Amino acid sequence: MKLGVCYYPEHWPEEQWAEDAARMVETGLIWVRIGEFAWSRLEPEEGDFRWEWLDRAVKVLGEAGLQVVMGTPTATPPRWVCEKHPGLFALDKHGHVRGFGSRRHYCFSHDGYRGEAVRIARLMGERYGRNSHVQAWQIDNEYGCHDTIYSYSDAAAVAFRQWLEARYGSIEALNDAWGNVFWSMEYRHFGEVFLPNLTVTEPNPSHVLDFKRFSSDQVARLNRAQVLALRPLTDAPLIHNYMGRIVEFDHFAVGADLDIASWDSYPMGFLEDRSDQPEEVKRRFARSGDPDFQAFHHDLYRAVGKGRWWVMEQQPGPVNWAPHNPDPAPGMARLWAWEAFAHGAEAVCYFRWRQAPFAQEQMHAGLLRPDSVAAPALGEAAQVASELPGVEVETGTAPVGLVFDYESAWAWAAQPQGAEFDYFRLVFDFYRGLRRLGLSVDIVPRDCADLSPWKMVVVPGLMHWGDLGVDAYEGVLVAGPRSGSKTADFQMPVPLPPGLPGVAATVARVESLRADSPVPLEDGGAFRFWREVLEGEALEAAEDGVPARIGTARRQYLGGWPDDEAMMRILREAAEEAGLETLDLPEGLRVRDAGKWRFAINYADRSWKLGKHIPGAPSGRIGAHDVSWWLR
Amino acid sequence: MKLGVCYYPEHWPEEQWAEDAARMVETGLIWVRIGEFAWSRLEPEEGDFRWEWLDRAVKVLGEAGLQVVMGTPTATPPRWVCEKHPGLFALDKHGHVRGFGSRRHYCFSHDGYRGEAVRIARLMGERYGRNSHVQAWQIDNEYGCHDTIYSYSDAAAVAFRQWLEARYGSIEALNDAWGNVFWSMEYRHFGEVFLPNLTVTEPNPSHVLDFKRFSSDQVARLNRAQVLALRPLTDAPLIHNYMGRIVEFDHFAVGADLDIASWDSYPMGFLEDRSDQPEEVKRRFARSGDPDFQAFHHDLYRAVGKGRWWVMEQQPGPVNWAPHNPDPAPGMARLWAWEAFAHGAEAVCYFRWRQAPFAQEQMHAGLLRPDSVAAPALGEAAQVASELPGVEVETGTAPVGLVFDYESAWAWAAQPQGAEFDYFRLVFDFYRGLRRLGLSVDIVPRDCADLSPWKMVVVPGLMHWGDLGVDAYEGVLVAGPRSGSKTADFQMPVPLPPGLPGVAATVARVESLRADSPVPLEDGGAFRFWREVLEGEALEAAEDGVPARIGTARRQYLGGWPDDEAMMRILREAAEEAGLETLDLPEGLRVRDAGKWRFAINYADRSWKLGKHIPGAPSGRIGAHDVSWWLR
Amino acid sequence: MKLGVCYYPEHWPEEQWAEDAARMVETGLIWVRIGEFAWSRLEPEEGDFRWEWLDRAVKVLGEAGLQVVMGTPTATPPRWVCEKHPGLFALDKHGHVRGFGSRRHYCFSHDGYRGEAVRIARLMGERYGRNSHVQAWQIDNEYGCHDTIYSYSDAAAVAFRQWLEARYGSIEALNDAWGNVFWSMEYRHFGEVFLPNLTVTEPNPSHVLDFKRFSSDQVARLNRAQVLALRPLTDAPLIHNYMGRIVEFDHFAVGADLDIASWDSYPMGFLEDRSDQPEEVKRRFARSGDPDFQAFHHDLYRAVGKGRWWVMEQQPGPVNWAPHNPDPAPGMARLWAWEAFAHGAEAVCYFRWRQAPFAQEQMHAGLLRPDSVAAPALGEAAQVASELPGVEVETGTAPVGLVFDYESAWAWAAQPQGAEFDYFRLVFDFYRGLRRLGLSVDIVPRDCADLSPWKMVVVPGLMHWGDLGVDAYEGVLVAGPRSGSKTADFQMPVPLPPGLPGVAATVARVESLRADSPVPLEDGGAFRFWREVLEGEALEAAEDGVPARIGTARRQYLGGWPDDEAMMRILREAAEEAGLETLDLPEGLRVRDAGKWRFAINYADRSWKLGKHIPGAPSGRIGAHDVSWWLR
Repeated sequence: MKLGVCYYPEHWPEEQWAEDAARMVETGLIWVRIGEFAWSRLEPEEGDFRWEWLDRAVKVLGEAGLQVVMGTPTATPPRWVCEKHPGLFALDKHGHVRGFGSRRHYCFSHDGYRGEAVRIARLMGERYGRNSHVQAWQIDNEYGCHDTIYSYSDAAAVAFRQWLEARYGSIEALNDAWGNVFWSMEYRHFGEVFLPNLTVTEPNPSHVLDFKRFSSDQVARLNRAQVLALRPLTDAPLIHNYMGRIVEFDHFAVGADLDIASWDSYPMGFLEDRSDQPEEVKRRFARSGDPDFQAFHHDLYRAVGKGRWWVMEQQPGPVNWAPHNPDPAPGMARLWAWEAFAHGAEAVCYFRWRQAPFAQEQMHAGLLRPDSVAAPALGEAAQVASELPGVEVETGTAPVGLVFDYESAWAWAAQPQGAEFDYFRLVFDFYRGLRRLGLSVDIVPRDCADLSPWKMVVVPGLMHWGDLGVDAYEGVLVAGPRSGSKTADFQMPVPLPPGLPGVAATVARVESLRADSPVPLEDGGAFRFWREVLEGEALEAAEDGVPARIGTARRQYLGGWPDDEAMMRILREAAEEAGLETLDLPEGLRVRDAGKWRFAINYADRSWKLGKHIPGAPSGRIGAHDVSWWLR
Repeated sequence: MKLGVCYYPEHWPEEQWAEDAARMVETGLIWVRIGEFAWSRLEPEEGDFRWEWLDRAVKVLGEAGLQVVMGTPTATPPRWVCEKHPGLFALDKHGHVRGFGSRRHYCFSHDGYRGEAVRIARLMGERYGRNSHVQAWQIDNEYGCHDTIYSYSDAAAVAFRQWLEARYGSIEALNDAWGNVFWSMEYRHFGEVFLPNLTVTEPNPSHVLDFKRFSSDQVARLNRAQVLALRPLTDAPLIHNYMGRIVEFDHFAVGADLDIASWDSYPMGFLEDRSDQPEEVKRRFARSGDPDFQAFHHDLYRAVGKGRWWVMEQQPGPVNWAPHNPDPAPGMARLWAWEAFAHGAEAVCYFRWRQAPFAQEQMHAGLLRPDSVAAPALGEAAQVASELPGVEVETGTAPVGLVFDYESAWAWAAQPQGAEFDYFRLVFDFYRGLRRLGLSVDIVPRDCADLSPWKMVVVPGLMHWGDLGVDAYEGVLVAGPRSGSKTADFQMPVPLPPGLPGVAATVARVESLRADSPVPLEDGGAFRFWREVLEGEALEAAEDGVPARIGTARRQYLGGWPDDEAMMRILREAAEEAGLETLDLPEGLRVRDAGKWRFAINYADRSWKLGKHIPGAPSGRIGAHDVSWWLR
Repeated sequence: MKLGVCYYPEHWPEEQWAEDAARMVETGLIWVRIGEFAWSRLEPEEGDFRWEWLDRAVKVLGEAGLQVVMGTPTATPPRWVCEKHPGLFALDKHGHVRGFGSRRHYCFSHDGYRGEAVRIARLMGERYGRNSHVQAWQIDNEYGCHDTIYSYSDAAAVAFRQWLEARYGSIEALNDAWGNVFWSMEYRHFGEVFLPNLTVTEPNPSHVLDFKRFSSDQVARLNRAQVLALRPLTDAPLIHNYMGRIVEFDHFAVGADLDIASWDSYPMGFLEDRSDQPEEVKRRFARSGDPDFQAFHHDLYRAVGKGRWWVMEQQPGPVNWAPHNPDPAPGMARLWAWEAFAHGAEAVCYFRWRQAPFAQEQMHAGLLRPDSVAAPALGEAAQVASELPGVEVETGTAPVGLVFDYESAWAWAAQPQGAEFDYFRLVFDFYRGLRRLGLSVDIVPRDCADLSPWKMVVVPGLMHWGDLGVDAYEGVLVAGPRSGSKTADFQMPVPLPPGLPGVAATVARVESLRADSPVPLEDGGAFRFWREVLEGEALEAAEDGVPARIGTARRQYLGGWPDDEAMMRILREAAEEAGLETLDLPEGLRVRDAGKWRFAINYADRSWKLGKHIPGAPSGRIGAHDVSWWLR
């Protein structure tokens, strides 16, 4: 468990490097990430390399005692690369070019650009792959940030046709799989298929889903190309830094080629900008962030990283990109780091060392102010560094597994059927419910064949069962809504869903509900947004008599989207069935169990009497925005 | 009065057709509509025809006892047609192409496409025009759906110039009619005129209105071209299936070339997606639909069809395209059909037979589920079929005529002057008021020279008087607001509006009102959204003393948009003046008189004591979502 | 102090001109503006001039006793100019052309168009520059209306590169100034720089700011080109008519080349369409306009005009372009004119004489209705004309100076950091606070080196101090928030802001606040939207202990955006420190001091007892929407 920081030697006079490095070490930081946007300084013209400054930077940092994470600069191809490859830009869905002048200005399908990316990665690998100070690599930066997964360029169209041909073999197979007979949409050959934009009304959802699968594969392909270039040149782990609530590509697929997953955690920006919470909740947690959002992603990326994961960028103070960017409450820069460690992070790196006084992110805080005075987070980082030695986290397996599947996110984005039906929102609602019960959770990918490690498994909204090991699973299973409701080709299966072995239920039809029209359940709470008309013997019915849940206490299918009350009730019942102890945590207080430790994390703006809410906790109170841990 | 259903033999294995047909007959269905999206199966390559499967389908259905409505498949030109005519796509107002991949992907002005459409229609006519099972034809499908009337393509620009030249003769006449001197917008010749998109600020409203007239004419032209191709080949009636609340083309003009009007009635989708009702009303009727929306369109299309009209597609269960798609309340699939018959429908066809498990509409219910089990609507359809024999509806003339004019809709869309001023909304508000009084209504086109059949005529928002027979009319006339306020060229007339013979009123000026700022009337209620400063002797004044209504009890001009209270009061007073009996119907309960029958239709989620609300009704209650009829 | 009117002889039969002119004179109007949209009538084909009608119009008007303002018609190039220069259209930020069909359809950077504009201006100058009836000139019309300052055309790109080269000399200097190292955005030569649109995420704010500076310079350049053409040909003053709340170009820079500033004042449209006021305030003043909006612009354009300014277009009745366009309350057409004179206007011209019955503005009221009957404003104008002789306004210097800087508006638009941070809104909030205290205000440009004329100077949100004479200023100074927070290159200065001499404050960091989360101040009121964490000795702190104001009573820096309560308190305290008497004016009542006169202006819909609110006022009440003036 180590702290680190992101640093840009190219932003500062060389004279300042040594002092910066010394101060990092003094703070207790160990990792320093550099290089990921520096292409124009490394190769200002094609073939005109300027490695020397980076050589010196690595040396200064390394000799100060820091370990370097070296980034490949492929998220920001310089102007000359764009001139050389005029087709490398992505096009948006309207057909407008997404050009030079910020970052991530490339289409994943452009062969010329992939060549340039591999070339610069290889050259960096050759120069630094065996450098003893370089202990890890970051490939590219924040895939998918700024909505950059989908490109409607010519390069993408050509690649999509190849991808389809590889998938389907014949155009007849594609026409069948998509049901193109529906509106005379049948193709005669693959060359007739276009990208699913600029249609008169919605395109075929099977077409859309395949385009999303293809686009995700293109991300994995470009990432893999860099991996293949670097692997022979270094033994250090290869990492990518993902973002929060980006579902446009399959992180598990990208992660499969990497050694460690990492993510960039900006709790306050994410709450303000990417949350479905009501405004009142956003207001209440405006200075601390959503109490579950970080934990969810920690658990997600632990799965993506096959157990190994970092926070590569940790918010240190106000950011610059949300609609509102308040100052974090004192203590949050410490709390966020500790929460990551409680979820098994190997490293937490603050972004960034010193606030840059220029360009797009000049209003983004760092550990230092632009005048090099310490910002509040520096002291909090130092405190974490001093607290770390006493704790060793072994993650182990959580009692509950929650399935999260990117393909399902694409499916329901293509066909929400109700305005509020968003897959992330649905899964995250279940996650929040589990957390409020005090349960620790593992995120489980859809191809997990063996679910036996978990006492309880929750599967909301899984498009199709695929390889998920539900058949053999003997723990407590809660599935639905919408789980199993499509074939892999995005058709409705016959016999009708859910097709869950051991549960004699049929989804006769579904309805999406206005937000003001939930359907009350007979045992309390309601279904909101989504409700299925189930056939079968009801475990519980809605007040109108339609079965709401079918199956048994240990294996049930849930025909709707539970509101908070129903969610807590249903999950608590299932957890108790699984032999798990549950809590009833107040707003903002959360628990995380990791090996022998139990952590309490308080996102609330008030203190709580710990023992009252968490039996077995030490006596005394946990302060506002404070963390506490003890041996359980 | 017959029931029917929409069927897609090309979606199902041929083995299933006979069983499907038998089950349709058993349900009591008589009509079956087929073929309207099947072009790629009929002609997968240019000139490569595959009629045989359709021959067999017609035979199977016909021999089972069904009558076939054959659709021309021109709403979905296959991919090869688009390759052959690369300019056939419409462009949207931003200049973006609206391409292949869904439906309605053609520009009405494209000559090449018109040729293809006529060709396939003629070929189908030649093959099936005299087939004894084919008893009606549908041309194309849902003109205007997905906002497809306006195209800004090169083909449209060329055709628009020809249209203008034909209308104006000289460019000087056009410049005069449009007032192009205003901002130096004068043209030297027709070749200089562009379509009214991509201007810096709003284009000249006369330019816009002519573009809308032209666009409407192009719809009529393409429809007429198919009519001319089919007429010599069949004696069966020609039909088009219109939609709800689509005002972008003149349905009367299209209808003039056809034998029967029909429309596609999706009450719940329309309420959720195309209604101005407050959210609370949308919530209340979310499972039944707006109590007046269907009736309005029934009356409208009865007029468009010169008395002959159908519901070609009737919602059977949840649809897939509104923001929320709940399940209809039990009984609605019966109620909707009965309401159509009460308004004089010759046929009601449910859409569709079996829910398709693939492509865009896989979440759209049918009479059967995808697994061929009966959905709830199947039983309701069977019930209607069993009830029909006892009732014969003769529509006759309604006591009230309400003028509805597409050109006025275009005019006020071009120049709303107030954010809420929408012509459909205005007319529909008057319609709702009449319905709440228990009055049956005929929709009257703007060129109706003889208004004497109606005891009372209401004319809200009619752009200019044109050929409407108001001068000679001796019944009770309620006109305004905005009626007569433009010339045919979209200029303000001098003398000032309304120019209504027999009413000494002048609209000195107008004002559009914030929704929170209605103008109260001295006798109760208020004007909302729109108020005119009238000069003349007041029949009633606003509380600020400005005349609100001018004229006499039998012939009045109304200088504003009445809110619900004022609307009911003013219309009741006029109806009484016309010697009509009025009711005061509670929310959701409606009455329709048709010949000797009186129908009561209950959209509400509760029952009512019939006799209390409708004098002369049979004793007893009408249930929630139920229908009742009796001899009056 | 003279009244006038806008007139379009080309819209009316020549027979009507003389009668119109006589009626204008009879009303008491003196100025008549003509010609500014008449290009297609003056030169219908290139080189085919038709001056004669305009000659006659000038003669008829002049001989009736009117003084003509002659407009150059360059806001509406006719169709043939566009055909001749196909590249003259601006492109919007999406790259869509903004074409012919309304007005302002030219890109300021297009050399060919500038040539045409200069040519027509010179020809008009040659013909009318010495005509004794032509006493003033208006150049073009409403620069910036319809969002027309920014163009992303090829012509703009070429000109921008030249502008950058002139500013920076070398590409290295540009890369440094912009901090292009940040995301490898470095350029190798000026030809590589594009306009800052169509980027993946936000472009570099320095890039954006320079584009805005450039775009503003292009406006000044085109205006100057016409000025240079006209200067040798006439001695009459040259004027442009600006708009309300348009900040996209530097009006001071344009005004520097002109003799008189003028603006087009549409109080009700501006309140409905361009105001940040809550809906409740918009509702309350829907028939009169914002009580401070006109005054602000009067003071602004008095500064832009170096003391000489007009209202070139005054709203006379309902307009046609806001979301809602109600009728002004009786008296407002008089009140608005008097308020302008109270702020020093030399002329107020109503727009327009007679309502045009055709084209885009046919719903825009005039002094006459389309049928030539007097609209209400005609009588009010006549009343003003009859009242004017008794009053002579000498503006003098106001007690308070308020700095308004267009460059700061561009800076904060490029980097708001909080959704509500709009520079105009911020400055206008301070202006409103000063007005509610009864203080008269001068607007001060950012390059004003000598601030000594004002007893108190207020500087909210000034991007950088530049040449503003704050150092030597000895009056009461209230600066901030955000003042001095950037360098001229749009970088953060080190040492950190505010860098205000004599105030030992440091802005350690800033935060933008949700609208529902203001930060309360210990002496009452709160900061909303924006709050800075200040270091230094607090003059006042927020309730959380962070200094809110630093400095002394006579020279302070304010670290936030005060809400109404805090604003009034802080400004009152400062005004008292400056020895100024303050009032506490009720909603809608305002005071303006001009030389020996004190004016009271009542925007409220009720009367007030004058002496109760304004000590020294004459006894009695001021009516709703009335004006009162007395010797002070």
